[in-house]
Amino acid sequence: MEKEKSMAEITRKMKADSFRMASLSEEVRNRILRAVKETLLENREEIFTENRKDLEQAKSDNLPDPVIKRLKFDEHKLASVAEGIDQLIGLSDPLNRKLMDRELDEGLRLVRTTCPIGVIGIIFESRPDALVQISTLCIKSGNCVVLKGGSETRNTNRILYELISRAAIENGAPEGCMHQAQAHSEIDELLNCYGSVDLIIPRGSNSFVQYIMNHTKIPVMGHADGICHIYVDKDADVDMAVKIITDAKIQYTAACNAAETLLVNRQIAKEALPKIAKDLRAHNVLLRGTKEVSELIECQEMKEEEFRTEYLDLIISVKLVDDVDEAIAHINRYGSHHTDAIITNDHETAERFLRLVDSAGCYVNCSTRFSDGFRYGFGAEVGISTSKLHARGPVGLEGLTTYKYLLYGSGQTVGEYADGQKQFHFKDL
Amino acid sequence: MEKEKSMAEITRKMKADSFRMASLSEEVRNRILRAVKETLLENREEIFTENRKDLEQAKSDNLPDPVIKRLKFDEHKLASVAEGIDQLIGLSDPLNRKLMDRELDEGLRLVRTTCPIGVIGIIFESRPDALVQISTLCIKSGNCVVLKGGSETRNTNRILYELISRAAIENGAPEGCMHQAQAHSEIDELLNCYGSVDLIIPRGSNSFVQYIMNHTKIPVMGHADGICHIYVDKDADVDMAVKIITDAKIQYTAACNAAETLLVNRQIAKEALPKIAKDLRAHNVLLRGTKEVSELIECQEMKEEEFRTEYLDLIISVKLVDDVDEAIAHINRYGSHHTDAIITNDHETAERFLRLVDSAGCYVNCSTRFSDGFRYGFGAEVGISTSKLHARGPVGLEGLTTYKYLLYGSGQTVGEYADGQKQFHFKDL
Repeated sequence: MEKEKSMAEITRKMKADSFRMASLSEEVRNRILRAVKETLLENREEIFTENRKDLEQAKSDNLPDPVIKRLKFDEHKLASVAEGIDQLIGLSDPLNRKLMDRELDEGLRLVRTTCPIGVIGIIFESRPDALVQISTLCIKSGNCVVLKGGSETRNTNRILYELISRAAIENGAPEGCMHQAQAHSEIDELLNCYGSVDLIIPRGSNSFVQYIMNHTKIPVMGHADGICHIYVDKDADVDMAVKIITDAKIQYTAACNAAETLLVNRQIAKEALPKIAKDLRAHNVLLRGTKEVSELIECQEMKEEEFRTEYLDLIISVKLVDDVDEAIAHINRYGSHHTDAIITNDHETAERFLRLVDSAGCYVNCSTRFSDGFRYGFGAEVGISTSKLHARGPVGLEGLTTYKYLLYGSGQTVGEYADGQKQFHFKDL
Repeated sequence: MEKEKSMAEITRKMKADSFRMASLSEEVRNRILRAVKETLLENREEIFTENRKDLEQAKSDNLPDPVIKRLKFDEHKLASVAEGIDQLIGLSDPLNRKLMDRELDEGLRLVRTTCPIGVIGIIFESRPDALVQISTLCIKSGNCVVLKGGSETRNTNRILYELISRAAIENGAPEGCMHQAQAHSEIDELLNCYGSVDLIIPRGSNSFVQYIMNHTKIPVMGHADGICHIYVDKDADVDMAVKIITDAKIQYTAACNAAETLLVNRQIAKEALPKIAKDLRAHNVLLRGTKEVSELIECQEMKEEEFRTEYLDLIISVKLVDDVDEAIAHINRYGSHHTDAIITNDHETAERFLRLVDSAGCYVNCSTRFSDGFRYGFGAEVGISTSKLHARGPVGLEGLTTYKYLLYGSGQTVGEYADGQKQFHFKDL
């Protein structure tokens, strides 16, 4: 039946239902999560069967092995997904938290309390476990959600969605609590639902996220590119630098938090660069650098403007700088405000870097790859935000909430305060 | 010199300077605020002279009296502006506040810390004290700001800007800390500065704010319309309802938080409506209502779709509803998510209203006019936001900050955690 409705109709209905979704108690939301976990475990065979269809299709479509590996949903993935739901149930309620409780005057009390954002549209890549993670985060935070997963996991997503939404509705969620978009054309329809959809979270390639941002009036949370830098200061421990740079480049090359650019202080370059280059080459990384760099190590020469490149591949850009300030200026100009690291043993230089680099993550002496909801201890994430408004960095439960101000009065009018009959006394409770 | 530069050049320079602005210590920012206060007091005669020019122009342009009154900047306004700066100096620092401090593993510490948003463009109405309030809020929160005030206060704004920016720069702020746009055409130029301007805050009419929202890729914080409701429940104290409704309608008719629509429970309508109507009429308010309402009190008949109207005038829309749920549904559908109030003595009904109404301010037994930064005890506000992302409701210092994640390591790589050599232990410090 739903398939005959337009996305506009579906999201309008979700909007109307979102207030009921927002008012579910913590007990009901956790009961739903327990039911979701149980139904996934009970229907494992059906899920695996559907997943095999996707895997066969992927093989006959000659998709690359790493992609096929990510599509797989087996006992191991199911167990980790179930464990994730248990963790989510254990997290404290993100809703109805008092962020402020202030007596403005006798009998006039202002409370700032957290509440869900409302209706969220999430467009994500081809990993079936992402659907479970996203939908359970939305349940815990009281949000309605439109899910659009990758077409390569069509069959797995469909059965997962059916099981999860049925468990949610049977346990107290309103009918419009979630919807699965299946056709690619539904993405453009979703982008037009300004007024009924409160937030879009796109996960995917740079050009895809740019497209979303340019084609909707709905606020978009996420990041387009991840041009992450590592700056090796003159006071760096060179062995540590070698280890961190190689990890940040090769541990997961396609990740947004992998390093793309290496900045090296001129005073340490002669000593450090050959060691760094040797280790990177041993891991098949191609080095590209300015003319000056090419005089110290063998590398492909590159131009200044190319420092805006996100390779997502075994390639790294290298440049020399005079000091931490030149490194900061380069990062703020060419970077994507995602995650950037300094390697130094000098405390003051490190603090200057942390204060002045304008990125969601500013690191000292560790790999940029740590920028991730799980590694930050958030349980799970719906994405990483490079926006400066609302949520920044990895976005977990907290980023899926907003707040409202409640004012409890006993007949007060503003006129009484304007003409001096009454006065505010502002007492935090 | 600045006038020859384009807005794009000016904001690029501001962006480059914004990192220095962000790193000013609390001591320096408060020193600047003290210098701003002193220079305004010392140069009072020059300010009053410039203000008289604006007032004469306004009179010869035949501007209405209430507008002319707002343009006036005299000893009284100067004293209140100086008091506001003193209060701002006394407020605790909104920057470098630790929002989280977590040990991920031994020697790997994650800190979430507040920082300025960067470069903010604020377009505001014709009140010279607004320029002082906005620029000092930006100084305290470490933001660079482009100011565009109303043309009616051109001369007063120019002298205020010159005094404030000189005091800021002489006391340690970077040159690009603030800029005053003077020509109306500069607004469109400003809207094109995506990448160097982080946030636009427009204050003004509904159509003006809509225009801004539709013509920029830069995030916009604020509100277009303010269609605020008061719902009189069956368990309302009728005398209290009369008093609150009249205040919310007439205390400042042109304000965004003035009431535009009255919803009355059918069970109490026969008793309450005539009393409410009588008091409103005594204050020259024109009543408009549905056919059903016109059978109870004398009023102009109106259609359902007209409930989306923001009058900003001595006019109010009236409708009857069955219960609190119908009132909530009406408010969420026709309202502007700004501020809405319920009048009731029933605690449960009140809580249901507060939980389910999707507005920045949800009030019980008091006037919608309380929705304001000063009345909330924020000291001052840059505007009121109906957005659900970032800041909602009156926006003070806190809404002008964002946060970043700092990660302090000692050589950690993600590979060590991925292959099980090391494990996270997540300990909040």
